[in-house]
Amino acid sequence: MAELRVIKVKQSVLANNDSRAAKLRADLKEKKVFFLNVMSSPGSGKTTLLINLINRLKDKIRIGVIEADMDAVVDASTVERETGVRTIQLNTSGECHLDAKMTSEGIECIGADDLDLVILENIGNLVCPAEFDTGADMSMVLLSVPEGDDKPLKYPLMFTRGNIFVFTKMDATIVFDFDVEKAKQRILRLNPQATFFPLSAKKDHGVDALADYLLTKVQQKMK
Amino acid sequence: MAELRVIKVKQSVLANNDSRAAKLRADLKEKKVFFLNVMSSPGSGKTTLLINLINRLKDKIRIGVIEADMDAVVDASTVERETGVRTIQLNTSGECHLDAKMTSEGIECIGADDLDLVILENIGNLVCPAEFDTGADMSMVLLSVPEGDDKPLKYPLMFTRGNIFVFTKMDATIVFDFDVEKAKQRILRLNPQATFFPLSAKKDHGVDALADYLLTKVQQKMK
Repeated sequence: MAELRVIKVKQSVLANNDSRAAKLRADLKEKKVFFLNVMSSPGSGKTTLLINLINRLKDKIRIGVIEADMDAVVDASTVERETGVRTIQLNTSGECHLDAKMTSEGIECIGADDLDLVILENIGNLVCPAEFDTGADMSMVLLSVPEGDDKPLKYPLMFTRGNIFVFTKMDATIVFDFDVEKAKQRILRLNPQATFFPLSAKKDHGVDALADYLLTKVQQKMK
Repeated sequence: MAELRVIKVKQSVLANNDSRAAKLRADLKEKKVFFLNVMSSPGSGKTTLLINLINRLKDKIRIGVIEADMDAVVDASTVERETGVRTIQLNTSGECHLDAKMTSEGIECIGADDLDLVILENIGNLVCPAEFDTGADMSMVLLSVPEGDDKPLKYPLMFTRGNIFVFTKMDATIVFDFDVEKAKQRILRLNPQATFFPLSAKKDHGVDALADYLLTKVQQKMK
């Protein structure tokens, strides 16, 4: 009984969410603001990569960052300190995902009118965030070398919903077996449009290609 | 509106779950079966550690394994092949956690009457699995070195609910900064009863201490 009720409520929540996400997408289209949603497991290196990316791009485009966490503020203060760009913290009070209502509030709070790119660092989780359309133009999913190349088999929704896939901590292949080709093939079976960026943000290898790709996407929307 | 309904249903689901978990715990007390719940992020090394542990313990106690995944069967077949112990796969059809109803069904399915220890490998997720009492005697939480020592700050419920904490992939400290003392202190602030086991299952360092600890706990319940 309880389960059936949960499922019904979930369907209504997801339908509401889709219409809110569509509204947010329309608003941001009008404002010519690109909205990037970043998702991964805990500890895959989202914050480190974002700091590196933002420092490459911040002189070319105007960037804002929304950091989501269940109840911490560590990432927001790190990103703001390391990049100087406008950053806000969204706390989900224990929820495992962000929905379009929360992201709309986040974008209202950060004020997107004078920005070209808003980056959302979603909750570290390979399950729940994939279920909710955040209203983003693009979802970037990180898979770190230490997590293993089998994760697309085990968390298929995330690897189906993402648009671009970043293999992080590539410098750790000296310690961990991670077969990039296997990982790519497993993702492509779920998601034939997937684009890949293997890199090490710490060693500053491979981040250029991702930064150029994002810059092109953001500038296309600015036109 | 939708949010309020979700919260109400969630409270009723959690209350139902608590009574189911209590019933399962009573059943397993009568049967003298120890039930261990294993939780972590995706890719923290749950499967590798379990294989190592089971191979150390399987000649001393009778072990069964319940592998939970959203819709894959890779872990169950790996554990069965590598250890030879009875293993079943529980698929949650996309749900991000196991509740006591699912674990009760899993234990019925595996048949615990001739076992001393049932190990549940929960869904790889630091958020949702912490919310639901599975009926286990003990929850073991893994935190891998590549994830970082800040995870207790960001996922406090998981580190509050766990009983024993295993720092995995300690061999990776040659590549990653991970301050064991900082991680311990952050967990102890949430959970003063926490017990810690730093180890590398791959290099076979430190697993003995954890195996001995578990064996003692299981044998105490068998008496």
